[in-house]
Amino acid sequence: MAETASVRPLRASEVETWDHTADVVVVGYGVAGACAAIEAARSGVDTLVLERTGGWGGAAAMSGGFIYLGGGTPLQQALGFDDTPENMEKFLTAALGPGVDSDKIHDYCQGSVEHFNWLVAQGVPFKEEFWGEPGYEPPADQGLMFSGGENAAPFNAIADPAPRGHLAWTKDKKLGEKGGGYMLMEPLAQTAEKLGVRHEYDIRLRRLIVDDSGRVVGVAATRYGKPVFVRAERGVVLATGSFAYQHEMVERFAPKIFGRPAATVEEHDGIGIRVAQALGADLAHMDATEVALIADPQVVVRGILVNGRGQRFITEDTYPGRMGQAILQDQDNQAYLIIDEAALEAAFETQSSMSFLRIAPTWVAETVAELESEMGLPEHTLQHTIDLYNHHAEQGTDPFLHKKPEWVKPISAPLGAYDLRGYTGGFTLGGLRTDLDSQVLHVDGEPIPGLYAAGRVTSGICAGGYASGCSLGDGSFYGRRAGVAAAKGN
Amino acid sequence: MAETASVRPLRASEVETWDHTADVVVVGYGVAGACAAIEAARSGVDTLVLERTGGWGGAAAMSGGFIYLGGGTPLQQALGFDDTPENMEKFLTAALGPGVDSDKIHDYCQGSVEHFNWLVAQGVPFKEEFWGEPGYEPPADQGLMFSGGENAAPFNAIADPAPRGHLAWTKDKKLGEKGGGYMLMEPLAQTAEKLGVRHEYDIRLRRLIVDDSGRVVGVAATRYGKPVFVRAERGVVLATGSFAYQHEMVERFAPKIFGRPAATVEEHDGIGIRVAQALGADLAHMDATEVALIADPQVVVRGILVNGRGQRFITEDTYPGRMGQAILQDQDNQAYLIIDEAALEAAFETQSSMSFLRIAPTWVAETVAELESEMGLPEHTLQHTIDLYNHHAEQGTDPFLHKKPEWVKPISAPLGAYDLRGYTGGFTLGGLRTDLDSQVLHVDGEPIPGLYAAGRVTSGICAGGYASGCSLGDGSFYGRRAGVAAAKGN
Repeated sequence: MAETASVRPLRASEVETWDHTADVVVVGYGVAGACAAIEAARSGVDTLVLERTGGWGGAAAMSGGFIYLGGGTPLQQALGFDDTPENMEKFLTAALGPGVDSDKIHDYCQGSVEHFNWLVAQGVPFKEEFWGEPGYEPPADQGLMFSGGENAAPFNAIADPAPRGHLAWTKDKKLGEKGGGYMLMEPLAQTAEKLGVRHEYDIRLRRLIVDDSGRVVGVAATRYGKPVFVRAERGVVLATGSFAYQHEMVERFAPKIFGRPAATVEEHDGIGIRVAQALGADLAHMDATEVALIADPQVVVRGILVNGRGQRFITEDTYPGRMGQAILQDQDNQAYLIIDEAALEAAFETQSSMSFLRIAPTWVAETVAELESEMGLPEHTLQHTIDLYNHHAEQGTDPFLHKKPEWVKPISAPLGAYDLRGYTGGFTLGGLRTDLDSQVLHVDGEPIPGLYAAGRVTSGICAGGYASGCSLGDGSFYGRRAGVAAAKGN
Repeated sequence: MAETASVRPLRASEVETWDHTADVVVVGYGVAGACAAIEAARSGVDTLVLERTGGWGGAAAMSGGFIYLGGGTPLQQALGFDDTPENMEKFLTAALGPGVDSDKIHDYCQGSVEHFNWLVAQGVPFKEEFWGEPGYEPPADQGLMFSGGENAAPFNAIADPAPRGHLAWTKDKKLGEKGGGYMLMEPLAQTAEKLGVRHEYDIRLRRLIVDDSGRVVGVAATRYGKPVFVRAERGVVLATGSFAYQHEMVERFAPKIFGRPAATVEEHDGIGIRVAQALGADLAHMDATEVALIADPQVVVRGILVNGRGQRFITEDTYPGRMGQAILQDQDNQAYLIIDEAALEAAFETQSSMSFLRIAPTWVAETVAELESEMGLPEHTLQHTIDLYNHHAEQGTDPFLHKKPEWVKPISAPLGAYDLRGYTGGFTLGGLRTDLDSQVLHVDGEPIPGLYAAGRVTSGICAGGYASGCSLGDGSFYGRRAGVAAAKGN
C-alpha cells in the first residue's frame, strides 16, 4: 500500500486500486471548488468533488458573503452607481498592491459583469438595496456596499468611487441566521448537484499522483485514516483554501498574523500548497494577509484612531480591513480609538452588523490630559494629536489624513478611549502561482500538466492590500476557469 | 544534448559526458561558498567551486565587511565588552523577528565564539579598536562596532548592549580602497586554494542533476552559453546569493523593495532558489529585506526623523538599517530629517563613513511654521511634532521614542529638512529553508539528499529584522556547515 504521510507526489504505477475515477477531480467544496465543479460538469465531463468535512461549504459558507464585483454590474446600475472595468482596475491596482498580478487584475475586471450574471444564472440572489454606512457588512440583507475604501482617501482621488461589495441575498436575515456566504454557497452546490457533480465527503487530500511524464493524474487521500486513491482522467483542481491554520507555514511566511487566525476555518491547513510545491509549483505573496480590526466601524468613524504613541495614521472612514492591515503590519499591532461622549452616543444610535461590540470605552476622562495619563501615554502626546485634529476639524477639514468632511468633528470632553491593542485577526492571501486559466505554474514558468487551482490556495488578485469580497470573488472567478480548463485537460 | 534553459532537475542518465567531477561541488564563490569549500577540502574530499564571474568574491567582497558575532569573542573581550551567547540570543530573537528560526538563532549564538576563532585561524585579521559613533560602518579600520541597534531603544531594555559588528581589518584603509568585505574574502579564498580547492570561473548554474532516487548528483551549467555538466560524488552546495536582482521574484515576494536593489550584486538572480524549488525545496520569509536608509547617521542622530505626515516614528540613535526598514515597510517610503543649524554644524564636524552625503538640506527656514509650509505639510503638523519633542528635550528626555539622553537636544531655529523620500534600498533575505547542517529541506520536512545551501540563497537567522553583519555572519557560519555535511555526503 502506498503511504500517505508524505506530501511528495506518488507515482501512478504504485497505485494498486483506484477507489474512485472521474474526468475532473476537484479537491475542496468551498466557493472555488463549487464553481470549478459546475463549469467542469457543464463542459460535459464526469466531475467528482472531494471534501474534507461532512458537506459542501468551506470557509465561504461561514463568511459574510461579499463578492467583489464591478465594472457596471446590473446591481450597480440598478442602484445608480456608474462603474467601468477600467475604473475598477485602477482602484484594485492601487488598493491591492504593491506587486499585484496586473494580468489577473485586468482579466478579473474585464470579466466581472459576466461573472455577476453567471452567479445570478446559477441561482444566487442579490437584493437591490444599497447600504451606505461604515461597516464590514450591511446589518441586514442589503445587496451592495462599499467594501474596500473606494470612497475614502487616498482611493477616492485615484478612481471614481463605486461600491463593489455584492452580497448574496439572505432574505430578511435575522441575527444568528445563515449569512450571505451560505446563501451564495447553497445555490452553487445545488446547481452542481443538478449538473450531476458527484461528491465524496470526509476525504482529506494527502498527495498528488503523477504519471511517468510528470502529469497529475489523481490524488492520494485518506478517509478516517484509510488511504483512498482517486484517478483524474483530465485534471485535478485544488480548491483547499489558505494556510491560515498551518502554524509552521504562518510562522515562516506571515509571522505577524501568527496566533491570530480569523474569518477562516481550521481546514485551511495549507495542504494544497504543499502538495503542489512538492511538484515544483511556484508561489507568490506568501506574506500577504487579510486583517480585520475587531471594532464597530460605526464607532471608529466617529473617533480618531491612534497608534501606540498616540499618533493618527489612517483615515477613520476607510474600509476597516485597511485599518486592520495598517495596525498589524505597520503599527506593531498597537491601536487605540479616541472618541468623545457625544460622538459615542451618536454611534450607538446607528445600525451596524457589529453592534454587539458596543461596550463602554476602556478609559474615560474629563480632560484629554487625564485620558492621556490614564492610558499611560507620554505627557502631551495625545494632547498634541487632538489639538492638531481639532485645529483643522473646526474648519471641517482633515488635511492630515483626508477624512471626509461629513465625519470630521472636533473632539471635546468628556471623552474616552478603547484599547484596541491586539484586536486584529485574519487569514493568509499568498499561495500557488497560477495563470489566467487557473493552471498551476511550475517555478520554470510553465503550467504543471493536469493541475489547476483557485481560491485561497492560490495567490489571487491581492498582493499587499485587501478589499472585502476579493476572496469569494477571485475564488469563484478562477474556480470557474479551473473547471473549464481541467475539463479540457490541457 | 540535454537542454539548459529550464530550471527543472535533469536526470543524470541524460548526461552523456561529465565535464568536471568532484566530491563536493560548491556553486558560488562568495563568503558562503568559500567557507563551504574550505571545510569540505579540510574534510579530505576533492572540492570544486563553480563561479559565475571571473573570480572569487561575490557580494561579500564588495560589502562593508561586517560579520555579526558575539557571545564573548576575543575581540569583544579585548575591547572590554561583556557578552554571552544567551544575551546575544535574546537580542537577535527580538531584533530579527518576528518569526525567526529559533533553533538557528540558538545554534548561531552558541557557535559564535568558535566561529570568530575559526575566521582568525583562516587568516582573517581584526583590529583591536572600537568605534562608538553612529553609523553603518567605521570610517576607517576599527574592528568592532554596534551594528544592529543593540544600545538603542527598545533593545537596550531587552538585552545587555554589546557591539557585535566585527570588521575584517583593512589595514589603514583610505577612501576608495578595498573594504572590509574584500579583506575578509581574500584570506578565505587563499586558504581554500592552499587546501587544494579547485575552481572554474565564468560558469553559470542552470539546473540540478539528480539520479533515479532523486538524490542531487551534480549541476548543469553553461560557460559562455555552452553546456557544462559537473558531477558531484558527495554533494552540491548552493551559495549563489539572493534574488535581489530577479525582478519577477522581487515583485512576487518582496514588492516593496522592487526597483531599489542596494548593497547587492547583479549576479544575485535567484537561480539557486529556483533550481531547488523545482526539486520541492521549501522556502521561508520570502518577503524579508534588508533596507538601508541612504543618509549619514551622524547627521540623522542629531535631528528628528519624521514620516510623510511629519510624525516621528523611530528613535534616531538606533541602527540606521532599522530606520530604512521602518521607512520602506511601515511609512510608505516617506521620510524627512529635520535638523537645526547648530546640530548640522556639529554633525559635519564628526567623522563618518558616509560623510560624502553631507550636502545642504533640501529646505531651510527661519521658523518651524515656515519650514512646514515649504515642505508642503499640513499646517501645524511639524509644529506639533517639534513642540512635543522640545517639551521633553528641555528635560533631556524622549519618553516618546526613548532616544538616549546624550542625543536629545531641543530643536531651535534656524533649521532645515532633508527630503529622504525614496532614499532606501536593499536586498532580499528570504530563500531556501535549511536545517542546522545546511541541508536543503523538502516541503515535506526531510532533507533533499545531496543538496546543501548557505548564505542569502537561504533564509538564515533573519526573519523580519536585520543587523549589519548577519549576512556575512550566517553565510560564513552555515557555509562551513554545508561544507562539512556535503563532504560526508549525507
